[in-house]
Amino acid sequence: MIREIATLTVAPEQASQFEGAVTDARRLFLAAAGCHGMHLERVIEVPGSYRLVVAWETVEHHTVTFRGSAAFQEWRALAGPFFTEPPTVVHTEVAVG
Amino acid sequence: MIREIATLTVAPEQASQFEGAVTDARRLFLAAAGCHGMHLERVIEVPGSYRLVVAWETVEHHTVTFRGSAAFQEWRALAGPFFTEPPTVVHTEVAVG
Repeated sequence: MIREIATLTVAPEQASQFEGAVTDARRLFLAAAGCHGMHLERVIEVPGSYRLVVAWETVEHHTVTFRGSAAFQEWRALAGPFFTEPPTVVHTEVAVG
Repeated sequence: MIREIATLTVAPEQASQFEGAVTDARRLFLAAAGCHGMHLERVIEVPGSYRLVVAWETVEHHTVTFRGSAAFQEWRALAGPFFTEPPTVVHTEVAVG
């Protein structure tokens, strides 16, 4: 299992609406093939900065299967309008712990 | 509870030694006041890039109590020599999920 960590940036004054959109979109991830969970973290020091953390069975479940799905289009339609910078994404695996 | 997310960068050829040092240092975090767990994640796309994730009771348990402790000095003595860039740190709290 791997984790997608996406850095998302929105206008601070739209933070609560953005969090509502992610709450709506959560079902899209949880129903996706190979998805083992998702949550959104708010960066305490930087208003409007978030980390979206999604557990996937493999990197390809995210980059190929999910990104090629209608659910991804729905996710971007819900959350995309809030982004003030292009999202950046890395994938991680546990090294220690 | 909040999470410290530190971005750590080491020389790719020293990655396995660095992971060994973090394995050694794990006890320092787990014994620290207000620490609820830690793990190290390896970024799949970028050799030598890591995310250290530590769960703390409060931000101050990390920034004041831990950073002021002998355990922090020991942690930096173990891991610091591997860093090729200054670590960057944010603290997060769950917004959704």
